[in-house]
Amino acid sequence: MDYDALCEVQLDELRKAGNYRVFAELERKRGAYPHATRFVEDATEQVTVWCSNDYLGMGQHPAVVGAMHEALDAFGAGAGGTRNISGTTHSHVLLERELADLHGKEAALLFTSGYVSNWAALGTLAGRLPGCVVLSDEGNHASMIEGIRHSRAERQIFRHNSPEDLDRRLSALDPARPKLVAFESVYSMDGDIAPIAELCDVADKHGAMTYLDEVHGVGLYGPRGGGVAEREGIMHRLTVIEGTLGKAFGVVGGYIAASASICDFVRSFASGFIFTTALPPAVAAGALASIRHLKASGVERARHQERVAKVRRRLEAVGIPMMDNDSHIIPVMVGSAHHAKLISDRLLAEHGIYVQPINYPTVAKGTERLRITPSPVHSDDDVDRLVRALSDIWSECALARRAMAA
Amino acid sequence: MDYDALCEVQLDELRKAGNYRVFAELERKRGAYPHATRFVEDATEQVTVWCSNDYLGMGQHPAVVGAMHEALDAFGAGAGGTRNISGTTHSHVLLERELADLHGKEAALLFTSGYVSNWAALGTLAGRLPGCVVLSDEGNHASMIEGIRHSRAERQIFRHNSPEDLDRRLSALDPARPKLVAFESVYSMDGDIAPIAELCDVADKHGAMTYLDEVHGVGLYGPRGGGVAEREGIMHRLTVIEGTLGKAFGVVGGYIAASASICDFVRSFASGFIFTTALPPAVAAGALASIRHLKASGVERARHQERVAKVRRRLEAVGIPMMDNDSHIIPVMVGSAHHAKLISDRLLAEHGIYVQPINYPTVAKGTERLRITPSPVHSDDDVDRLVRALSDIWSECALARRAMAA
Ligand SMILES: Cc1ncc(COP(=O)(O)O)c(C=O)c1O
Ligand SMILES: Cc1ncc(COP(=O)(O)O)c(C=O)c1O
Repeated sequence: MDYDALCEVQLDELRKAGNYRVFAELERKRGAYPHATRFVEDATEQVTVWCSNDYLGMGQHPAVVGAMHEALDAFGAGAGGTRNISGTTHSHVLLERELADLHGKEAALLFTSGYVSNWAALGTLAGRLPGCVVLSDEGNHASMIEGIRHSRAERQIFRHNSPEDLDRRLSALDPARPKLVAFESVYSMDGDIAPIAELCDVADKHGAMTYLDEVHGVGLYGPRGGGVAEREGIMHRLTVIEGTLGKAFGVVGGYIAASASICDFVRSFASGFIFTTALPPAVAAGALASIRHLKASGVERARHQERVAKVRRRLEAVGIPMMDNDSHIIPVMVGSAHHAKLISDRLLAEHGIYVQPINYPTVAKGTERLRITPSPVHSDDDVDRLVRALSDIWSECALARRAMAA
Repeated sequence: MDYDALCEVQLDELRKAGNYRVFAELERKRGAYPHATRFVEDATEQVTVWCSNDYLGMGQHPAVVGAMHEALDAFGAGAGGTRNISGTTHSHVLLERELADLHGKEAALLFTSGYVSNWAALGTLAGRLPGCVVLSDEGNHASMIEGIRHSRAERQIFRHNSPEDLDRRLSALDPARPKLVAFESVYSMDGDIAPIAELCDVADKHGAMTYLDEVHGVGLYGPRGGGVAEREGIMHRLTVIEGTLGKAFGVVGGYIAASASICDFVRSFASGFIFTTALPPAVAAGALASIRHLKASGVERARHQERVAKVRRRLEAVGIPMMDNDSHIIPVMVGSAHHAKLISDRLLAEHGIYVQPINYPTVAKGTERLRITPSPVHSDDDVDRLVRALSDIWSECALARRAMAA
């Protein structure tokens, strides 16, 4: 049996559909980000990164990098064990306390990534609460979908951001069964924001738990960076808030914040939490510094929003088609894997601008796009160059400008 | 519906069974490890750690810590994105090349942890190769079990380390179906070592792929630290070798090494690889330095084996019951969750020695143990104190000494 050949068959299908992914190889430069070096075969070139999820540039913030240096010197590289077997360090405990405080919850629990936190927490809650039914927004992230699947609980998918459909579905269920409503605050590819309060109203009416993925909200929204739910003053209405340390906080890792009982439950039963090496103490220390900084400082958030508004306005002025939303994510719609790759390649080759094309399976086929994420560290000059480059390519590629389409 | 109460019911069951876990809160000191500070409520105390999986003390090695400092200064804290969307850095690419070389494979693929590498790689290979059957050793780690379950492929469990049972099972299967044999080199809780060559013989006879988890072997065995399969000169016989960067290499992260086609296949289709933030470049750089060091230097491995043999010999001399094996893991058998906790508590309180009790679900009920992991950084004095402490407690607890039991 030729296993390589079996693999190549499916890889060829990806290639034919234009969905085969080639990773850009970068080297960020601390202090110079969003400028970075790109490696192409044996050469290197300078690029401006416009598609990072280090939304606020915290990955190069002196407070974060400094805290990591200090922790490295004090404690060394790794944690050396799972959380249960010698891998719980003081740094982890401090970070979990900080996260609980950030979200106004009794407790928090760290995971190696946001992906694992969703997978493990949803898998455990839905899987171990007897008879639990999960109501999952149809736009939910792969990690939530896999967690729910992992739980083997009954699952219903409700229409994206629709409290009405959720209500209808919950009404049809046995009131005696445990229920979990899972959704996101900011959907990462469309950038639209959930009606969190309305979804909570419906969940409350039916006695359901609420599980909110704030991966693209934490650090970015709310007076202390607690996320969209903090901005709306409704963190207390969510049973579980899940987040990442790898995007706005600029490091890596994931977590849930919830009641002490729920965190203890997931801590005690989740395979993906128990059977894996804990995050390095230096990672925990860096994330802690980042969260503390963004709790106290609003300038990064203000500047972030200002940059996003500016890029949107400028792209709109030259007729680049964007999906409308109320968040910091600017999806420039292209609609084919082929064109998305073409534009991305030209941006790189001719303008030194790096925006990864977003294809299936990250977004549905036919909705391929360039996902642009402005940050406080993008200068006016960076913005000018981005807008000019996109405008040029758009004309030359004879892609329909929004103005013409309208 | 009171969800906290539902959680507490199950937590109470854990408590009653003696399986409720309390994490020791530690602060390792770079340079002083295995000595560490333990936090107990508002006080701290000094302990010697005897249960870490930082098997060689690489977590405090100057080459590793130095490489991480450098990378932090050069590139900042996090990767800023998934591997596909701005998160592939030069450090990741270099590390993947080094891992491929370590195992003599065409390619390697990084994951956020060894857990995720098993889950994602097994889930994808077994799940996407049409009609694939998985043959899984009954002792396999939770992460492999979850990966196989995730694949939804047909699964057969073969008797632990039994080429005969594997042969019997493979013989009964349709020769035309893809097959994957999954097992570990060193089983982490019993410390026994798989008959890798014999299992490969059987797999070859039936045209099956082999997937070897070397999580407790890499860095520790073989002339370059390639693992047990390297020591035995049979790395080329394994289709996939999986490992961790969080144990002997002292940092965090996981990987597979395999043919270019298989790595590309997992890279292209595995949800747990695609939809998650990449490891920080500094983590990749630290792991790279660790692997390079252990490729060139055998002193850590030699000293490790010497320390293990010494601790075994000394414990044997005072009649402490150990499970026999050919690896670096010393399971001191206790046989009840209650006693394991008692002994662990006394070691800590009276002797400043930290060995976490290992209970269900990590090991089967009735086989609870203390799992002792000597390292090159444990001194003769550390060993003396460990042996004296265990001997004292063993007498006082009136636990049957092996001599008496025999
Ligand atoms: C909505 C959402 N949830 C969870 C994750 C996973 O978080 P992490 O990157 O920390 O694994 C992501 C992206 O990676 C995401 O977009
Ligand atoms: C056999 C085995 N495989 C995989 C893992 C997971 O590796 P990691 O700790 O890097 O997640 C572990 C332990 O944690 C293990 O013991």
